[in-house]
Amino acid sequence: MKDLRLWKTLSSREVYASPPWVRVIDDRIELPTGRIVESFHRVLLPDYSMLFPILEDGRVLAIRSYRHGAGEIVIGFPGGGIDAGETPVEAARRELLEETGHSATAIEPLGAYITGANIRGAKCHMFVAKGCRQVAEPDSGDLEEQELVRYSKAEIEAILKEHRFHVLAHAAIAARALLDWKPE
Amino acid sequence: MKDLRLWKTLSSREVYASPPWVRVIDDRIELPTGRIVESFHRVLLPDYSMLFPILEDGRVLAIRSYRHGAGEIVIGFPGGGIDAGETPVEAARRELLEETGHSATAIEPLGAYITGANIRGAKCHMFVAKGCRQVAEPDSGDLEEQELVRYSKAEIEAILKEHRFHVLAHAAIAARALLDWKPE
Repeated sequence: MKDLRLWKTLSSREVYASPPWVRVIDDRIELPTGRIVESFHRVLLPDYSMLFPILEDGRVLAIRSYRHGAGEIVIGFPGGGIDAGETPVEAARRELLEETGHSATAIEPLGAYITGANIRGAKCHMFVAKGCRQVAEPDSGDLEEQELVRYSKAEIEAILKEHRFHVLAHAAIAARALLDWKPE
Repeated sequence: MKDLRLWKTLSSREVYASPPWVRVIDDRIELPTGRIVESFHRVLLPDYSMLFPILEDGRVLAIRSYRHGAGEIVIGFPGGGIDAGETPVEAARRELLEETGHSATAIEPLGAYITGANIRGAKCHMFVAKGCRQVAEPDSGDLEEQELVRYSKAEIEAILKEHRFHVLAHAAIAARALLDWKPE
């Protein structure tokens, strides 16, 4: 492997902030070549957890809701911001309960990923939740209206392959979970 | 399906901009319930194309490089911003040539996804590039040092399952392309 060198951040300036939702940082950078880049932005967003919930009957629990970034109703999966003092898996378990009223017998990690290679964005912690069953009524406190929907594995695969997911994290977690899903 | 209602944007205010890299918009929203949300941010980033390049010999072409959002060397795939007047597939083909010196016999869409459900972020247009072979030297003009690396399908699957991708789009395109990959 080639010995690639890191960039050096010479200084960082916060150019916009609306806590806790968004911080924009303008970095002054020195490249390994010695070249100075006067402005390179990072956009820091709240880290979050997301789950791909598999029900006891083998179907997948998804959520239809309006998402303002898309400007339309999208098919997605439960998830949300990680509270102070909470681990990513604790946030995942809480969001599953709040948004869907379900609990899981097992929650397994599918990795953690920043949403922007250049800007960082948020870190998205992904999990598959197995053996999910309803134990309460949903009570997310979210701004969005939502509908819980149950899809077969084949239906999730069709939604993915027909490009009917609109949000990267939703497509990513579906593709990742389907890869692990043993042939029936 | 439940009839979910959209949000109404009452007004939008640009609160930060550094063209063409980032624009931050603060929206005033009316929810379907009539409730007013005084501030809901969108962060608009340049749309981009990304490819999962499969070589003539069946291996996958990846790129190791420093990415400032991650602050470290990451394993990723070729891609970059869509220029004015360019279609997403044209941008993908150009980036493949510039970043890797390769051309493809076929480029097939894997969907287009916004990187943030709440904030929009960028729209990432994903493609699988088949029959890739080297036709030139790489000449990306990017700020990052890079190394081209060739992985077997099994190696890509291991990188994904061992959580060694750090950027959501890289993990997403790998998972999505592996799903389509017929068993050998």
